[in-house]
Amino acid sequence: MRQDIDRLMEERNLDAAVLSGYVQGNPNMAYMLRGADVSGGIVIKKRGETPCFLYSPIERDEARATGMTLINQAKYDYVAILRKTGDPLAARVELYRRVLAELDVQGEVGFYGMADQGASFLFLQALDQALPGVKVRGEYVNGLFDVARATKDAEEVDRIRQVGRLTGEVIAETVAFMRRHRVREETLLLDDGSPLTIGVVKNEIRRLLAERGLEDPEGVIFAIGHDGGVPHSKGNPGDPIKLGQPIVYDLFPRRHGGYFFDCTRTISLGYAAPEVRQVYQDVSDCVDAVVDAIAVGVEARILQQTACSFFEQRGYKTVASDPQAEEGYVHSISHGLGLAVHEEPHFSDVPSNTQTLQPGHVFTVEPGLYYPERGYGVRIEDVIWIDEQGVVHNLTELPRELVVEL
Amino acid sequence: MRQDIDRLMEERNLDAAVLSGYVQGNPNMAYMLRGADVSGGIVIKKRGETPCFLYSPIERDEARATGMTLINQAKYDYVAILRKTGDPLAARVELYRRVLAELDVQGEVGFYGMADQGASFLFLQALDQALPGVKVRGEYVNGLFDVARATKDAEEVDRIRQVGRLTGEVIAETVAFMRRHRVREETLLLDDGSPLTIGVVKNEIRRLLAERGLEDPEGVIFAIGHDGGVPHSKGNPGDPIKLGQPIVYDLFPRRHGGYFFDCTRTISLGYAAPEVRQVYQDVSDCVDAVVDAIAVGVEARILQQTACSFFEQRGYKTVASDPQAEEGYVHSISHGLGLAVHEEPHFSDVPSNTQTLQPGHVFTVEPGLYYPERGYGVRIEDVIWIDEQGVVHNLTELPRELVVEL
Repeated sequence: MRQDIDRLMEERNLDAAVLSGYVQGNPNMAYMLRGADVSGGIVIKKRGETPCFLYSPIERDEARATGMTLINQAKYDYVAILRKTGDPLAARVELYRRVLAELDVQGEVGFYGMADQGASFLFLQALDQALPGVKVRGEYVNGLFDVARATKDAEEVDRIRQVGRLTGEVIAETVAFMRRHRVREETLLLDDGSPLTIGVVKNEIRRLLAERGLEDPEGVIFAIGHDGGVPHSKGNPGDPIKLGQPIVYDLFPRRHGGYFFDCTRTISLGYAAPEVRQVYQDVSDCVDAVVDAIAVGVEARILQQTACSFFEQRGYKTVASDPQAEEGYVHSISHGLGLAVHEEPHFSDVPSNTQTLQPGHVFTVEPGLYYPERGYGVRIEDVIWIDEQGVVHNLTELPRELVVEL
Repeated sequence: MRQDIDRLMEERNLDAAVLSGYVQGNPNMAYMLRGADVSGGIVIKKRGETPCFLYSPIERDEARATGMTLINQAKYDYVAILRKTGDPLAARVELYRRVLAELDVQGEVGFYGMADQGASFLFLQALDQALPGVKVRGEYVNGLFDVARATKDAEEVDRIRQVGRLTGEVIAETVAFMRRHRVREETLLLDDGSPLTIGVVKNEIRRLLAERGLEDPEGVIFAIGHDGGVPHSKGNPGDPIKLGQPIVYDLFPRRHGGYFFDCTRTISLGYAAPEVRQVYQDVSDCVDAVVDAIAVGVEARILQQTACSFFEQRGYKTVASDPQAEEGYVHSISHGLGLAVHEEPHFSDVPSNTQTLQPGHVFTVEPGLYYPERGYGVRIEDVIWIDEQGVVHNLTELPRELVVEL
């Protein structure tokens, strides 16, 4: 949580942290900006002090919403610096030198935020050399802001829950939309007699999202038959919607610049083959088994072990026995959820992952079984929140039902 | 253009380029992936050879659309490497060592793609030390892929033009939507007698975008009165729409993961004050003056000089005479447009900007005059394309008209 940042800086022996870049695709910036609708800037956080935000003057009204100490970047006249140094890299180093000197930033300083990798390499090397009083630091994993973001406060959970409610509505309305179509020879039809396709359903999903003020910047998964058997297949827009063919519908929307929700349901219109019904039941039971294993202090990697053992016991192949498996259970059980669809905590089943589950963690539980050659896959995904008292809540208010009656 | 990449590598003395990260907010990745709907991966381009794409097996169907030589990353069993090294940074270095060795990548290698700045600093330092045959290189400006992207081929221009047509439709439909409301005491009203607000109009804009398969990941600017006088103010959702108050409406949508368009119109419902009408005419004349200055070989920075001189001649204050100006003309004239809203070419009026305009460039021309204290701002923004023959095209098919009759 935000209130942990000073403690996390102390643990890391950081005197200051500098976070910069555009907000787009940069969730640590979005976190510190608290939803302020600016395009980017530089956040400078000294340990024990209110963070400062170097903002662009053409965004001065939006910058106020950050709650940070505001510094108009025009004050440093970057263009004049650039004219003087003649080189953009030297100019940026000089800009930082002036800003850090004025704020009296010294010692161990961590640098964060998304930027081009090679450019960051050059810039941070140059800065480290140019500033004798500053030791440039980076973090490769468990970065300060990533760790702070991993535990959500009540307001953040409330926002995730709100998006969750709307996500459930969109999924239910999508099913209702499909049910409104007539059927001929196992295929859903549009009014003009042509097949209802995935592309048409995706347009409807986009409409349903927009109606609710949601966006899906990473794109919805709506994959039928074989494609549902490949976990990240987004679905082929031209494919017709047919009865008895499982559809993996994975929706991960957010409000503009805000918190994501993430929910998967697998549905089969009209009927489902006995094999698919059995697999569905086993995946649903696995969700419950994994949720039962969640408690404060449990190692995150245990959840993946729980899912693998559960499936192996029921006779399915998993990545635990074959890391290159493309049939059976072939991915991770969970990921943290917040301002990014995938964030901390991480659940890799490797010894270096010593992460334990904590109050405030919000994450998915999403087992699946995949049989592309047999023409189907099944995944069910709920979102879990561990509250301050350690009570485990399922934030997904949507029933699990494979077969949709027509 | 993509076909320039080998030449650009040669100019930079690069034997190979490595591009990685998530696609979100990472337009160089989107460019190389050619719209393939994968979440990320690693692109390895050796000079003179077809690029390779290290993809995630759960995205194997989508990866085919990249047109690159495909390598399933499961082959390297990253989890086993991580178990062995025990440290994620060492594991990533070892993964890259194996991949680069297998592809026989040696010599000067540039690294690109968005990632956390501090993490990139650590990773590229470690990689540079670990691989004796590889010299790690970064580019701070005019990066290989940025420069390739700056000139668009016919297919890319066609996509931008299509999004442009739809953007124009959305703007026209938004105006039509506002006109359908009745007026009382200079304020537009909803059916229930409450004022039509910016929030309601923005919901309608989102609906109009979704209907056309467009998304606006960076959010629309729809700012009235004072807020229109602050260039990046997004507009206050609770503000009512009133007659005679200029609205700055700046829309920059794209298809999912695709090319952006960017268009601004300033409108005033019912009537406009004489001062605003004069300012509008001067801004519109400035668009024409700047477009007239565009030709192959012209330095990009000349466009900003043209705009500043034009406005100064007509008696307005600009950033040329006062870099910290918050009234008058206070920003840049243009930015390149493509898979990012802001990309190369850049138009800063600084000596280090030696960029000249070239066939294939697509960029905005967007002068504005801002008077927040007087309660208004005016901006007009069109998109320009220089074709292969050097002919200048305006891709914006939308009339410029300040006053909307009710």
